[in-house]
Amino acid sequence: MHNKVFGIIGGDKRIVYLAKSIIKDGYPLYIYGFDLLSEASGLPELPLDTLIELSDNIIFPVPVTKDGATIYAPYSSKEIRPESDFIISLSGKNVYGGLMNKLVSKNDLWSMVNYSDYYTREDFAVNNAVPTAEGAIAIAINEYEGNLTGSKCLITGYGRIGKILNKMLVSLGADVTVAARKKSDLAYARAMGAKAKPYNEIHEAYDIIFNTVPEVVIKGKLLSKQKENSLIIELATLPGGIERKTALEKGIRIIDAQSLPGKVSPKAAGEYIKEAVYNLLEE
Amino acid sequence: MHNKVFGIIGGDKRIVYLAKSIIKDGYPLYIYGFDLLSEASGLPELPLDTLIELSDNIIFPVPVTKDGATIYAPYSSKEIRPESDFIISLSGKNVYGGLMNKLVSKNDLWSMVNYSDYYTREDFAVNNAVPTAEGAIAIAINEYEGNLTGSKCLITGYGRIGKILNKMLVSLGADVTVAARKKSDLAYARAMGAKAKPYNEIHEAYDIIFNTVPEVVIKGKLLSKQKENSLIIELATLPGGIERKTALEKGIRIIDAQSLPGKVSPKAAGEYIKEAVYNLLEE
Amino acid sequence: MHNKVFGIIGGDKRIVYLAKSIIKDGYPLYIYGFDLLSEASGLPELPLDTLIELSDNIIFPVPVTKDGATIYAPYSSKEIRPESDFIISLSGKNVYGGLMNKLVSKNDLWSMVNYSDYYTREDFAVNNAVPTAEGAIAIAINEYEGNLTGSKCLITGYGRIGKILNKMLVSLGADVTVAARKKSDLAYARAMGAKAKPYNEIHEAYDIIFNTVPEVVIKGKLLSKQKENSLIIELATLPGGIERKTALEKGIRIIDAQSLPGKVSPKAAGEYIKEAVYNLLEE
Amino acid sequence: MHNKVFGIIGGDKRIVYLAKSIIKDGYPLYIYGFDLLSEASGLPELPLDTLIELSDNIIFPVPVTKDGATIYAPYSSKEIRPESDFIISLSGKNVYGGLMNKLVSKNDLWSMVNYSDYYTREDFAVNNAVPTAEGAIAIAINEYEGNLTGSKCLITGYGRIGKILNKMLVSLGADVTVAARKKSDLAYARAMGAKAKPYNEIHEAYDIIFNTVPEVVIKGKLLSKQKENSLIIELATLPGGIERKTALEKGIRIIDAQSLPGKVSPKAAGEYIKEAVYNLLEE
Repeated sequence: MHNKVFGIIGGDKRIVYLAKSIIKDGYPLYIYGFDLLSEASGLPELPLDTLIELSDNIIFPVPVTKDGATIYAPYSSKEIRPESDFIISLSGKNVYGGLMNKLVSKNDLWSMVNYSDYYTREDFAVNNAVPTAEGAIAIAINEYEGNLTGSKCLITGYGRIGKILNKMLVSLGADVTVAARKKSDLAYARAMGAKAKPYNEIHEAYDIIFNTVPEVVIKGKLLSKQKENSLIIELATLPGGIERKTALEKGIRIIDAQSLPGKVSPKAAGEYIKEAVYNLLEE
Repeated sequence: MHNKVFGIIGGDKRIVYLAKSIIKDGYPLYIYGFDLLSEASGLPELPLDTLIELSDNIIFPVPVTKDGATIYAPYSSKEIRPESDFIISLSGKNVYGGLMNKLVSKNDLWSMVNYSDYYTREDFAVNNAVPTAEGAIAIAINEYEGNLTGSKCLITGYGRIGKILNKMLVSLGADVTVAARKKSDLAYARAMGAKAKPYNEIHEAYDIIFNTVPEVVIKGKLLSKQKENSLIIELATLPGGIERKTALEKGIRIIDAQSLPGKVSPKAAGEYIKEAVYNLLEE
Repeated sequence: MHNKVFGIIGGDKRIVYLAKSIIKDGYPLYIYGFDLLSEASGLPELPLDTLIELSDNIIFPVPVTKDGATIYAPYSSKEIRPESDFIISLSGKNVYGGLMNKLVSKNDLWSMVNYSDYYTREDFAVNNAVPTAEGAIAIAINEYEGNLTGSKCLITGYGRIGKILNKMLVSLGADVTVAARKKSDLAYARAMGAKAKPYNEIHEAYDIIFNTVPEVVIKGKLLSKQKENSLIIELATLPGGIERKTALEKGIRIIDAQSLPGKVSPKAAGEYIKEAVYNLLEE
Repeated sequence: MHNKVFGIIGGDKRIVYLAKSIIKDGYPLYIYGFDLLSEASGLPELPLDTLIELSDNIIFPVPVTKDGATIYAPYSSKEIRPESDFIISLSGKNVYGGLMNKLVSKNDLWSMVNYSDYYTREDFAVNNAVPTAEGAIAIAINEYEGNLTGSKCLITGYGRIGKILNKMLVSLGADVTVAARKKSDLAYARAMGAKAKPYNEIHEAYDIIFNTVPEVVIKGKLLSKQKENSLIIELATLPGGIERKTALEKGIRIIDAQSLPGKVSPKAAGEYIKEAVYNLLEE
């Protein structure tokens, strides 16, 4: 890359690590929207319009917006509203953000901006599955009253998180069953040392269930087999994959565990955004 | 499945395990083409035409043919030639074989036969990657003069064999690097505990290289870094992925290791054929 | 065992799981000292003197006392003071407790009592090292701002906790170095997939240091290499193995992590007490 | 170490790797007893008496003798007989060998020689357990007709080899049970992800049994449960731990697998001898 200037607008602690990592790589970088965060105090701040003017590459956080109206900037004392002027000032820049759709669908002017969504990249998603799986393991260790070693675990789904979580739980000596639809996924899960079955053959009681599927797969029959006080860790985007009413009636404990990368590994999560942005720049 | 009759024609030891496993499941089964193999002596033999007449499902081996002209039947005292009469007698049956193309391309009459190739199923291929990876590990243990634990290994390719071999080598304490093209594959390999790089960044000397890619990826620059007497295990279908002339000039040892499932785990390999055939019957 | 009656006096949640597990095995059991804990509400309570009278085997918690003067009973509304009458009433019973020395050294009458310390059993200590190692991993996942996968970890000591923690961290894909004195321990740690060195050869910066040694091994030179904000998890009994003044001056974060089994796996910890008591009864 | 001269007398391929490794460290070194081995051709040979005269440290192989009468020197065209003159010439030297007892018990003159047995060092033994366990795994992969992944394995004994083999088999996804006497060993084996039981509770059929115990522990009841064609790999020094007559009557296959380090990892085995000799020199 040539001597590119980066501008960062909003975000949480991950973005601070992202900023520090880009600076370490030797690129000029400015931030906006972190005046309430002491960890960001060493980073060069600029007013929003100057920052945009000086930067070649603008990085927004993931998610770029939570409410659809303002940029997600929990450490900013002021709201950042992407009005028309703001969007127009981004034209000619390389713009990067996570989950951009929720923002760009609100204003047609975004069609003039050269933006890319790093969140939809497969490599970014795989990378983030690592801290997600680690965070799930920490929750399981702390919340399950027995040991993870030797515990009977069910993982529903064998996508990115399912694959990595399976490997980790098996490595730690848990007795893992993977539930998945595709026969080749079942074969892979077995190759990694787990048991594996299609959903309709899962009938046993488990100490801990990890759901990774964003549609209801943990329901009636399976729930009816679980013991009171058993534990389900919901890793999928809410509303998730658990028939909650039934589960709660059974006295099953559900722990919602979304957005783990930012919580348990903000530094790694920041590096992954950087890696994705660099890859987008090169491609 | 209803009370189906299976007929098995030709094949190696895997097929004997396949036959025993089907019988254990309670289905009638006849074999042809094993008169030279003592392990098959307890299985019910029939003349070829009677076998076909009585069977609902005919299973051929993998590969169904090696020479394109005869059924692969290393334990048969007689050649089995799939002439036109033979093919016609198969119509109305469910016919299963591995790598059927080499056979069916020789005679148009095959278009009348309801045949399926179990070898092309993804679940079958994943299953077979397990004994392949195990066989590769046994070769590495026996042929590399140091320990696998702590050895510096390179795996080229992150397909089915690459994935499973990576997990196993990492588990055994080897220092593993995976070379692959896709960024998401590199991310997965790292999540599994390996180092991972694109091919053009692989410059170091390795104790053992495992190739899983069926095109030349181990060449010039990479080979020039390897020490005399270092070891490359070729797991891809020949001609494989190694620039052999260069490698041999460098004094590198190449071990060709194809068809490992039948060699190291004939029982598991037989079970996988059964599983694939049953899945095909159900689908 | 014959139809033995168990009496349980004081303790934390582990003891509740212990009680439930003994009841599940079919033995009569009474408790005293849990009136403030709702989880214990289903267990049969008795006044202290009646409990002792009816019981063949009396189980005290671990530690049996924290202050040397009262039985450790955080969920009791009344203090339990082991006065002379109390001690005399225990004679003729099998008495079990953890870290009994601190209690029995206070009153000579204990010499009349047949007591055993389950805490000093090797199998009990090994068992407890599992939840300790798991708890340490959960802390590391939550507190280290990067991923555990790929992080650079140092474990000081290769005793029970060191051995099990090493295996778990290596399994999770961390880059682990073990520091230990004995050459055979170094050899074992390497066999398990770690790097291993004597203390005087440990000079690098680590992302996370886990101390398991109850004497100061993390000091001057080693501390001087660590980065600001690096993390040390102290698993040894306090005052532990870290030269704290030096570490804090360097801006290193120290997390004290004692008594993890009772915190992260009270059920497993309760089962281990039961297993140890049963073994003592049989021996 | 000061500028020490090493002399090497007899041994197999491990000793050649040992010699090369010492030379790489910069020490002068001479060999005797390798005239039939082409791999040794680059190493400086001397007549036996000159070699002893010039050397400060004499290294004998492991075992130093097989027949009690000659030095073990399978690649020597001449017998090496440690007669009295020979022994006397060793006085004043540092002499190292493996399993020295069998040799020194034959001649009282050895009492004048400063010899040490590197084979009895704990670190040497632990180191050698790694290639032993790897070799056992290669045998299991090649000889068991199913996959190791998912296979049901029994390890008898939890000493050096048992510990390391357990870790490796568990890592590879086998379903491992460890049989051992000490309760703390059972606890360790479970912590590493295996099942574990005392010998008298082992009643099931296993796909593969690995014996590491040099006294008969695999007998009557346990053997009676094993299937025909099941596999026992004998890793202990012969006569080993299997009631052979009973096993052979049952049609069980026994594979004797001694001295694996020299066979599967001569280079590592040579390095371990060097490490042990250096440690002895320093201590």
